[in-house]
Amino acid sequence: MKKACLLAAFMMFALTTMAQTTKKSFTLNDLLSGGSTFWNLQPKYMFSTWWGDVPVELTVDEARRIGVEKSKSEVLFTTEGLNEILGEKLVRACTGVSFPYPDQPIVKVQTSKEILLIDFEKKSVAWRGPLQEGASELTWNPESRALAYCIGSNVFVQKADGSRIQLTFDGSDDIVYGHSVSREEFGISKGLFWSPDGKRLAFYKKDQSRIPSYPQVDITKRIAETYIDKYPMAGEETEDVSVAVFDIQTGKTVWLQNPKPKTDYMTNLSWSPDGQKLYVFELNRDQNHMQLFGYDAATGKKDSEPLVEERHPKYVEPMHTLRFLPWDATKAVMQSRRDNWNHLYLIDFKKRMYPEWRNADGGGTTCDHIAVQLLTPGNFEIRDFIGFNQKEKTALFIGNMTHPLHHTIHAVKVRNEKPKDVKYMLLSAGEGVHGASLNSTGTQLIDTYSSPTVAREVNLIQTKTGKSVNLLTAADPWQDYNVPEITSGSIKAADGVTDLYYRLIKPVGFDPSKKYPTVVYVYGGPHAHNVQASRGYYFRGWEIYMAQLGYVIFVLDNRGSQYRGLKFEQATFRHLGEEEMKDQIKGVEFLKTLPYVDANRLGVHGWSFGGFMTTNLMCSYPDVFKVGVAGGPVIDWKYYEVMYGERYMDRPEENPDGYAACSLLTKAKNLKGRLQIILGYNDPTCVPQHSFSFIRACIDAGTQPDLFLYPGDGHNMFGTDQVHLHERITRYFEDYLK
Amino acid sequence: MKKACLLAAFMMFALTTMAQTTKKSFTLNDLLSGGSTFWNLQPKYMFSTWWGDVPVELTVDEARRIGVEKSKSEVLFTTEGLNEILGEKLVRACTGVSFPYPDQPIVKVQTSKEILLIDFEKKSVAWRGPLQEGASELTWNPESRALAYCIGSNVFVQKADGSRIQLTFDGSDDIVYGHSVSREEFGISKGLFWSPDGKRLAFYKKDQSRIPSYPQVDITKRIAETYIDKYPMAGEETEDVSVAVFDIQTGKTVWLQNPKPKTDYMTNLSWSPDGQKLYVFELNRDQNHMQLFGYDAATGKKDSEPLVEERHPKYVEPMHTLRFLPWDATKAVMQSRRDNWNHLYLIDFKKRMYPEWRNADGGGTTCDHIAVQLLTPGNFEIRDFIGFNQKEKTALFIGNMTHPLHHTIHAVKVRNEKPKDVKYMLLSAGEGVHGASLNSTGTQLIDTYSSPTVAREVNLIQTKTGKSVNLLTAADPWQDYNVPEITSGSIKAADGVTDLYYRLIKPVGFDPSKKYPTVVYVYGGPHAHNVQASRGYYFRGWEIYMAQLGYVIFVLDNRGSQYRGLKFEQATFRHLGEEEMKDQIKGVEFLKTLPYVDANRLGVHGWSFGGFMTTNLMCSYPDVFKVGVAGGPVIDWKYYEVMYGERYMDRPEENPDGYAACSLLTKAKNLKGRLQIILGYNDPTCVPQHSFSFIRACIDAGTQPDLFLYPGDGHNMFGTDQVHLHERITRYFEDYLK
Repeated sequence: MKKACLLAAFMMFALTTMAQTTKKSFTLNDLLSGGSTFWNLQPKYMFSTWWGDVPVELTVDEARRIGVEKSKSEVLFTTEGLNEILGEKLVRACTGVSFPYPDQPIVKVQTSKEILLIDFEKKSVAWRGPLQEGASELTWNPESRALAYCIGSNVFVQKADGSRIQLTFDGSDDIVYGHSVSREEFGISKGLFWSPDGKRLAFYKKDQSRIPSYPQVDITKRIAETYIDKYPMAGEETEDVSVAVFDIQTGKTVWLQNPKPKTDYMTNLSWSPDGQKLYVFELNRDQNHMQLFGYDAATGKKDSEPLVEERHPKYVEPMHTLRFLPWDATKAVMQSRRDNWNHLYLIDFKKRMYPEWRNADGGGTTCDHIAVQLLTPGNFEIRDFIGFNQKEKTALFIGNMTHPLHHTIHAVKVRNEKPKDVKYMLLSAGEGVHGASLNSTGTQLIDTYSSPTVAREVNLIQTKTGKSVNLLTAADPWQDYNVPEITSGSIKAADGVTDLYYRLIKPVGFDPSKKYPTVVYVYGGPHAHNVQASRGYYFRGWEIYMAQLGYVIFVLDNRGSQYRGLKFEQATFRHLGEEEMKDQIKGVEFLKTLPYVDANRLGVHGWSFGGFMTTNLMCSYPDVFKVGVAGGPVIDWKYYEVMYGERYMDRPEENPDGYAACSLLTKAKNLKGRLQIILGYNDPTCVPQHSFSFIRACIDAGTQPDLFLYPGDGHNMFGTDQVHLHERITRYFEDYLK
Repeated sequence: MKKACLLAAFMMFALTTMAQTTKKSFTLNDLLSGGSTFWNLQPKYMFSTWWGDVPVELTVDEARRIGVEKSKSEVLFTTEGLNEILGEKLVRACTGVSFPYPDQPIVKVQTSKEILLIDFEKKSVAWRGPLQEGASELTWNPESRALAYCIGSNVFVQKADGSRIQLTFDGSDDIVYGHSVSREEFGISKGLFWSPDGKRLAFYKKDQSRIPSYPQVDITKRIAETYIDKYPMAGEETEDVSVAVFDIQTGKTVWLQNPKPKTDYMTNLSWSPDGQKLYVFELNRDQNHMQLFGYDAATGKKDSEPLVEERHPKYVEPMHTLRFLPWDATKAVMQSRRDNWNHLYLIDFKKRMYPEWRNADGGGTTCDHIAVQLLTPGNFEIRDFIGFNQKEKTALFIGNMTHPLHHTIHAVKVRNEKPKDVKYMLLSAGEGVHGASLNSTGTQLIDTYSSPTVAREVNLIQTKTGKSVNLLTAADPWQDYNVPEITSGSIKAADGVTDLYYRLIKPVGFDPSKKYPTVVYVYGGPHAHNVQASRGYYFRGWEIYMAQLGYVIFVLDNRGSQYRGLKFEQATFRHLGEEEMKDQIKGVEFLKTLPYVDANRLGVHGWSFGGFMTTNLMCSYPDVFKVGVAGGPVIDWKYYEVMYGERYMDRPEENPDGYAACSLLTKAKNLKGRLQIILGYNDPTCVPQHSFSFIRACIDAGTQPDLFLYPGDGHNMFGTDQVHLHERITRYFEDYLK
């Protein structure tokens, strides 16, 4: 017995040792989403959706009711079964289907040629509507079964009976109908908006005739050619946006009568539940005065006064549509950062207020013409508003209430309470970063999350009680690999008071007595963050690869980045890059306290705003960083777009000193280390004029940056180009930092 | 006395030693023509010209009759004196003046605003003609004192009395009058041609409306913009060229009536001495059939038959105008490579021949409709036809008769002789590379030359006797510098029989026991050569810099390059790069026999055709070359221009296999070493589509070239950009080859 135990112990020891010595190393193909083996090494995932209140798991082969407690797991239909009903093989996988009607056994399938509604109980086609060739922006309404879409720059509607109406005729490269506007800023992502009943269609018109086309070149043509890429640069001519409403019953189109300058923004279009009103968050070009206005959908007439107004000496940035209460159409939830944090506010259309400008905690002023009630007090950000539990009259959201890095799921009562009386209910695990999909009445949600200790979990959660049933706990897909240690922590920002969070990755096979080359990865701009409490603290695959090659990787979210409130973000207003760099240098100071960081071998890498930061750090702190790789960088904000650029920098004529101080063209002369600029040659976001102007400035100043470009690629590289790019970035550090 | 001698000897020893130890090193600014100190380190130069038969030295301050033998050195006038005559400071230096009339004391001065004729004996202004603002292509005729010029794309003539006539009106980006055509191929360099008496003006019309504009981008605009750059790619739409003659007396313009396809070439326009006929070398688009035609200048009527015809299964390339004998206007000298070597032929317009096609030594056929007599038999090339000694009736030329690398000055009788009876008279030193400027009657010339042992010499030579007076012997400007050893020699080409010449530069401080990294510099294309017997064997400054850093530099003129005859050049026809590379690999084999060459550290560098060769060598011989820098490379000949490209490669549809075999896009996958592609971002010669397509091909194939571009620069870099570029090239070899 004793002998056997000893043997077993020896064998276990031997196995452990063997496992350690035979652990595998990653290739870039394993670690990057564009890599050929990436998906083999991801935690197991579960595709799911809702059929009304019924949770459904979708696989390639079938749709299965998820069985928990009383209900049984049950196959609703199979891919093969759908194709049998159709009489031909039109459905390739069940993963893409949806259930448009909570109370009917109808599944919606979309092929390249039509939209199909299939009754999977009767096993028959309930309805089918063809798709016009070349149609884009497909927007289908389940109530009227009408389909809105664009052919090129014009809008069309196809009714349930298949008849088609062309709504606009003068669409062109200059006049664009039915597409997204304002370069997808302000939460705008589309240009066609059905009323809930599918009887009215609101759509955008974008007049960009005054905007010059940036000369993008397609080198794949027999002789290289330019193509149209309308790009409004800060301070220059910009878009004119307007909104129309088409009435499917009358066949008439009316235009929203907005007498303000057309260069104002019209964002976050929101239909009233009855489809009689359309609400628009309107913003002046200066982006410092937002007004929420209602319009009569039948006439286009604008309400005589706004419902809500917000001003801010820096900027106001409406990002969310109204969400009407399912049980009371006279009230809606609005999201705003008026009180510094992105919060939910209940607005009451019936309750008129005497409009007065008041100071708000976000540093701006508000003027409410109707009652506006804060629903979610506290020093945290709402990341996602999930929806309502209609029975409990609660609002469900994901926010970082627990900890700035953890995005957990919570419920709060939708009622008029004093902030101190508001109570939150934690629905999910209290740690990690969560995503949620809510059922029809809001009683249950499917929660998918990961954390530094959880690769992936999927749970079915009762939103009333928080009671949870585990649907999937994914195994660690990397157990056979050499994985570096990833930790997180915080340091103080350059202001001395603000906590900043970092991710730190140690080299594989870490030896604390050695000194390692260290690379700072940086983004640093608004609307993004690099550190959160998801798997591996939100690591990027390339960092694992670098750790494998013997680098320390450090990532710090500086002031200006996401989910830390408005003041944290606005610290950078009118002088982008400056505070951000001060914070990053605080990160470097921290790194220098670590005995295993070689302060003589510091590198920096980032893309887009991070490319701006990288170039800026290389030129502003030439004795700190030895090697940098800057991707798709902003070089001078005057070459960036109106919507994003003017929000943070104002117009060049209003802020000449800020533009000059933040321009890297004048800093090109300071470059000492090795800096490689990499860009997509056809980048429509940071147009090549940025990088090429910097290169020219360096040449004129006698400094020597390196350069690479990806012909045909845009602002980012995907697929095999992504792998090629990271080989390239890695090689640069291997060449010059090791 | 003895003691003093010893002391002197000691002091001399000490000085020599000190000189050795204190010799200076060059900077790139010293060695490159764009460098700030380049001109301080050049051999002394002498500006000279002719006033009829009188040699004149020009300096900033004065024009001085060069005194030799009977004549005395004498100041003709000073800059200050000219300005005194003018009453204002219009002349900044005498180096730019000329003497339009052999027998009058008149000097011509051109300012930005006018052309002035000053009588420097009478000290008065003899004539002045204003220059219209914005005028280009200024072409002034001393006989009629009429000035032809262009404003934009239209042609104007200003008569001696200042009155102006606009000759064309529809000039535009598409229709261009009075400018050079055919992309400066075929020896074409201008578009306005006065008849000798200045009474008729021939000018080109170029219709390029069918040619697309290559999308060149100017990034210096507020928002980047494209500009017009009509670029005809091989096999695609090309220019239509025609020629008009304007008669200053009648004010009428007639068009040369050429019924052949407009895409044919009309080259080397030559006026008859009496201005009644205009001769044109005409070439079909296939470039394999040349016809010399005469046109009646008054009517534009074409002669019914050609004077001379040449065909070649590869190509014919007329490069030179006719030069009429000063003593007999019925005869002219024509240059042709019909007999393999570029030679002078006497053509006799009076002596009609029965036209028959005959085989010629160059591999083609000729059909002479008038008598054509070879004047310069022998296996050598005429580099420059200098002119005639009118008294001796000799033709004066520079050719490599002595040795392929030496370009010496010779005279030959202009008379009908059998080749074996032709005698040459050597006028200059029998070695080195010479340039010559001839006086009015051809009795004397000023010879400027250098050789591996002569930094620069200027001699006044009697063209009848060869008698020479030295005007300048420049000291070695590099005597205080560490200068590497430069040698030359020959190896056999890959064909086993042809001699190829190289230049070899050893590292400064050469130690034969060491092994050195070695860089092959290459051009390799037609119409250029890298090795000749001028100072330092035609070294490039950068090579000296590299030798200083410890590199061996090797330069070999492969088959296909210049001044070695037609067959030597045409070995590459329809498969550019292949034979050239075989020869360069012969050079590598030679290098490997040198004990001090490190065959594991071979690099290659070249520009333009040399960039093509460099990229090709890196991809075709990936195990031979470790590092390459390719500048402004051709990547695929289908992206190169019609005129040059189709001459050597035919059209893509005629030679698909050749184009495919010579394309580097398919070779991109073979890249193993470090290759940096560098281009002018606005290169109008090798448009960026070449380099960017190669980069794209490498990305697709998973290989990793490097890239750099110079925004705003064209095919070559000048000034400080040239210095920056060579820092960059050097750094690349230092990074990866050392």
